[in-house]
Amino acid sequence: MFKYLTELIDKAKGQTLKRLTVAACQDEEVLKAVHEAAALGIVEPILIGDIEKTEKIAKELGISIEAYEKVDVKDLVESAKIAVKYVSGGKADFIMKGLIDTSILLKEVLNKEYGLRTDSLLSHVMIYEVPTYHKFIFLTDGGMNLEPDLEDKVKIVNNAVKVCRALGYEKIKVAAIAAKEKVNPKMIATVHADELKKMCNDGVFEEGVIIDGPLALDLAVSKEAARIKGYDSEVAGDADVLLVPNIETGNGIGKSLTYFANSQSAGVIMGAKAPIVLVSRADSHEAKLYSIALGSLISDLK
Amino acid sequence: MFKYLTELIDKAKGQTLKRLTVAACQDEEVLKAVHEAAALGIVEPILIGDIEKTEKIAKELGISIEAYEKVDVKDLVESAKIAVKYVSGGKADFIMKGLIDTSILLKEVLNKEYGLRTDSLLSHVMIYEVPTYHKFIFLTDGGMNLEPDLEDKVKIVNNAVKVCRALGYEKIKVAAIAAKEKVNPKMIATVHADELKKMCNDGVFEEGVIIDGPLALDLAVSKEAARIKGYDSEVAGDADVLLVPNIETGNGIGKSLTYFANSQSAGVIMGAKAPIVLVSRADSHEAKLYSIALGSLISDLK
Repeated sequence: MFKYLTELIDKAKGQTLKRLTVAACQDEEVLKAVHEAAALGIVEPILIGDIEKTEKIAKELGISIEAYEKVDVKDLVESAKIAVKYVSGGKADFIMKGLIDTSILLKEVLNKEYGLRTDSLLSHVMIYEVPTYHKFIFLTDGGMNLEPDLEDKVKIVNNAVKVCRALGYEKIKVAAIAAKEKVNPKMIATVHADELKKMCNDGVFEEGVIIDGPLALDLAVSKEAARIKGYDSEVAGDADVLLVPNIETGNGIGKSLTYFANSQSAGVIMGAKAPIVLVSRADSHEAKLYSIALGSLISDLK
Repeated sequence: MFKYLTELIDKAKGQTLKRLTVAACQDEEVLKAVHEAAALGIVEPILIGDIEKTEKIAKELGISIEAYEKVDVKDLVESAKIAVKYVSGGKADFIMKGLIDTSILLKEVLNKEYGLRTDSLLSHVMIYEVPTYHKFIFLTDGGMNLEPDLEDKVKIVNNAVKVCRALGYEKIKVAAIAAKEKVNPKMIATVHADELKKMCNDGVFEEGVIIDGPLALDLAVSKEAARIKGYDSEVAGDADVLLVPNIETGNGIGKSLTYFANSQSAGVIMGAKAPIVLVSRADSHEAKLYSIALGSLISDLK
């Protein structure tokens, strides 16, 4: 079984109950996961959306949603707005996306008046339990930022660091991934990686954060590969966070972990005042539950 | 064990003996792999480089290189030039890189006078036997082309198709990988993938080649993910070739397969008149042997 993810669930169970708003809650898979998280004592759901449809789905699933707070609103934008306002108004801790386009939800999240905007950047952080790796891998950003510039990457690292902190990490080893270790002006990934490493040495990042790069993936995660190539660093072979240079790389590595390396995962969007849980239809049921648990742990950081 | 790669070795054993020039042959790991390929009856090595050093290495390895043709030349550029000329002059079938910078070797390969230049583009093709996938995965290009444009990608696909042909493939399913399935002008990977698919439908590629895209990796390799997302195509869940949009994506997926999914691989550079075998120090001994066998099969295509 998935040892680290099971620990994550246990950790989430052990903290104060968190209030989770579900925007456009009329989604079978989301409802199932939310219900399970509620049954485990991780969250207290607030269902926002088409309640008639939601109750029908609940009935089909054989689950009772009677005890949950509900807001009946059929309009999708409105459901997102209410879900966001619950959190910005202090009545809930974090948000989960239901049957609604990501863009609609995030527009409300970023609303200047009642949203959850910060100085940071919204970025997607996935965590993977990989049976062939000795700890979690945090992967960012394979879902949201297409080709982040250096400034974006600083924010993306900081968002990932927060996720690590929520799981109790003190030292966080970040590998700035590229295709090679040598800095090459034609490969922006290597240039940025080198800059980030220098910035880290200059104290730009929180204490406990160590950035190394450019590193190809083998050196980031395999001590043996690092040994053979004569590359010695504290991060090499022992990376926690993989910072990727573009969305295709993050997406490709992440899906390789899931579909080829039998990994389980959890994911959240960071950079707003509260974490946003956003799962894909193709995610396993477990992944959805783990993502909620992760969101609840992060929302506890505040 | 690795069933498909074992079949690859058997296939290489079954064909005419190929002549392999090794440029700057004074490399322990390369010599070991070449010797093993020779012992299996796959290649007849032609060692070009510092023969004194090479003999010393052979002695240390406890192998005899007495029977091999040798050209003693200490200068690296000269060794690359001779290795290339052997092939362009018809005295050898393909080339392997020894203890020499890739750039030096490729410069000679591309020499207009005596080199192996074609109208195509040099590109790197890896093949992976992934224990969790039902056939080989051909991955291109995670080692050479940084961010190929559409025209480059056509050539990269054609180079990969040749590798598939060498292994006896008639139908070749190519997934043009992106982070999403929807074409988005801001994501050049999706635009190119869509174009390639259209070009394929218009008959631009060889018979038997089917290109689909843009596809995120899950849809390319998992029928289950394709089913859940309601995506139906001949390629989805059954891709042979993964065409990646940039070097970091190819490198990241490839190294995920090796380091997380216990895969074995072989790799060659295509696009010249003969395949070029180029292995990394961190490659396993087996990977080096498989790469030689793959090179020999491809050189048989001519």
